Amino acid sequence: MADVNLPTFADIRTAAGRIAGHAVRTPLLANHQLDRELGFRLRIKAEPLQRTGSFKFRGAYNRIAQIDPKQTPGGVVAYSSGNHAQGVAAAAALRGLPAVIVMPEESPRIKMRNVEGFGARIVTFNRDTEDREAIARAIAAENGAVIVPPYDDPDIIAGQGTVGLEIAEQAKEAGLAVDHVIAPASGGGLIAGIALATAELMPNAKVWCAEPAGFDDHARSLARGERVANAATSGSICDALLARQPGELTFAINRSLLAGGHAATDAETQAAIAFAFEHFKLVAEPGGAVALAAVIKRRLEPEPDTTVVVVVSGGNVDRAGYCAALAA
Amino acid sequence: MADVNLPTFADIRTAAGRIAGHAVRTPLLANHQLDRELGFRLRIKAEPLQRTGSFKFRGAYNRIAQIDPKQTPGGVVAYSSGNHAQGVAAAAALRGLPAVIVMPEESPRIKMRNVEGFGARIVTFNRDTEDREAIARAIAAENGAVIVPPYDDPDIIAGQGTVGLEIAEQAKEAGLAVDHVIAPASGGGLIAGIALATAELMPNAKVWCAEPAGFDDHARSLARGERVANAATSGSICDALLARQPGELTFAINRSLLAGGHAATDAETQAAIAFAFEHFKLVAEPGGAVALAAVIKRRLEPEPDTTVVVVVSGGNVDRAGYCAALAA
Repeated sequence: MADVNLPTFADIRTAAGRIAGHAVRTPLLANHQLDRELGFRLRIKAEPLQRTGSFKFRGAYNRIAQIDPKQTPGGVVAYSSGNHAQGVAAAAALRGLPAVIVMPEESPRIKMRNVEGFGARIVTFNRDTEDREAIARAIAAENGAVIVPPYDDPDIIAGQGTVGLEIAEQAKEAGLAVDHVIAPASGGGLIAGIALATAELMPNAKVWCAEPAGFDDHARSLARGERVANAATSGSICDALLARQPGELTFAINRSLLAGGHAATDAETQAAIAFAFEHFKLVAEPGGAVALAAVIKRRLEPEPDTTVVVVVSGGNVDRAGYCAALAA
Repeated sequence: MADVNLPTFADIRTAAGRIAGHAVRTPLLANHQLDRELGFRLRIKAEPLQRTGSFKFRGAYNRIAQIDPKQTPGGVVAYSSGNHAQGVAAAAALRGLPAVIVMPEESPRIKMRNVEGFGARIVTFNRDTEDREAIARAIAAENGAVIVPPYDDPDIIAGQGTVGLEIAEQAKEAGLAVDHVIAPASGGGLIAGIALATAELMPNAKVWCAEPAGFDDHARSLARGERVANAATSGSICDALLARQPGELTFAINRSLLAGGHAATDAETQAAIAFAFEHFKLVAEPGGAVALAAVIKRRLEPEPDTTVVVVVSGGNVDRAGYCAALAA
């Protein structure tokens, strides 16, 4: 792979300009009373409050805004467990492009309803037996459409990197020096973008990824220095975090910029959902809460009096799954 | 009552300066897809994201910041169903003042835990048989403490009015002309403060209060032109909205500035809690969601293409009550 394909911090700045006025500059939430109990400063970058309920709109819009509807009347195709689907569907609708989304048949209904609400068409597939990328390629060829990949794309990574850019800006506004940033990883686009922004703007901060236990392909790949895959493709409540292995572009960035990875069990992630409910009044979905789980369960153990920014990456969760987490 | 006791817009400006850096400038949330379905623009002023999980911190800090700990070592006393309690406890802790809070014995446990977490002492009372104001007065006399009333105080009203000031600023930043503002009312401090700010900054907007059905003392008082009381003092899930009648100061403001009041049943309020969960990823408590209920159930029927700002005033709700709302 040629390094020329990798996005840079300049691409994140460009992406920030492109998404401005369309994406939400989500707040960095604090709970000062909680900080006293924890012994460190916890700040939550609240991407459930992002347009479409997750960070995915950022990358999708950054990519799709560069497609000319006149030159590409066939629109866009995406494959996604749900949040990228919604991001692509919303961005395509804003730009007047038709969209087809290839989604696992067991996707949370809220995500499927939302995708259809944006006017996109859904094609379902079986996560264990079918190849979503092959399905997407066939649809793209048939429709004359552009594939918008979920993570292994410079524009997607740069768009997600605006999360890191905003964290740096908001920490500065609050007078905080950030010591740790941790975010969920599936294909690794979000954490790669954050790592690029952090390296530029908060070079003293360590960047970590968080994954569901048993799906910690990033942590294991980082430890081995090469990409390794997960054994399973389903079996965690974190439906958003089941990519089989790190992306090629994302891993090229993450292997040089991440401090490491942490994993959390489903039970720990449910506890993190309840924690976000109680202390931040924020609805988090399982995949969105895994980095928070890694911190509150002290997989990542912050030094006393440090500042830790946790990205809660999405909030698209069915009521039943949410209340199961609160009751756990 | 002499008009000299009523707060003015200038007092809200002063309060905004006083709470800056301590209170959160909570976001004005949007869901553009939802707007298309509704036919009007809905914006949520998200006070669950406020320090202590409700707007009450604003007024409490504005009042307590004016008390000198050296001259008043006995600190402060407050009576509250929970949110004012937390606001006072947090503000007192920040200012180094001891605090005693008189709370109904059936207050949500999350609110009681939080009050104690701020280092305040709780004295419970029976809402149906005891007079919380008399209990507070006795404690204040004994301790040499200052009573921080929940709503009928110019500094409290001015502090809550910063919600309205921020709505006006944020609407302007978003290029929106606001047509309607609606917020929950119990004693009426929040809506009175918002009405003062709206009259100054958004004079074309109508301001409405929302209440639980059966506890609509403001709506009935506005209709009659004089203060009337509720028959009951308990029996709604909206634990934060059970004041018996409008305050004297608050009603003097509200009778001249409000367009009217709307009521929502408990079932409608539960639907609004679920609506905030699904469309805004925001945890709302029952009393916090009653204005949203009035809008989504079309008690307030916005004209097509208008902009409606709904204040969701708090998010301090137990898990069981929350999931009961999501399951309703």
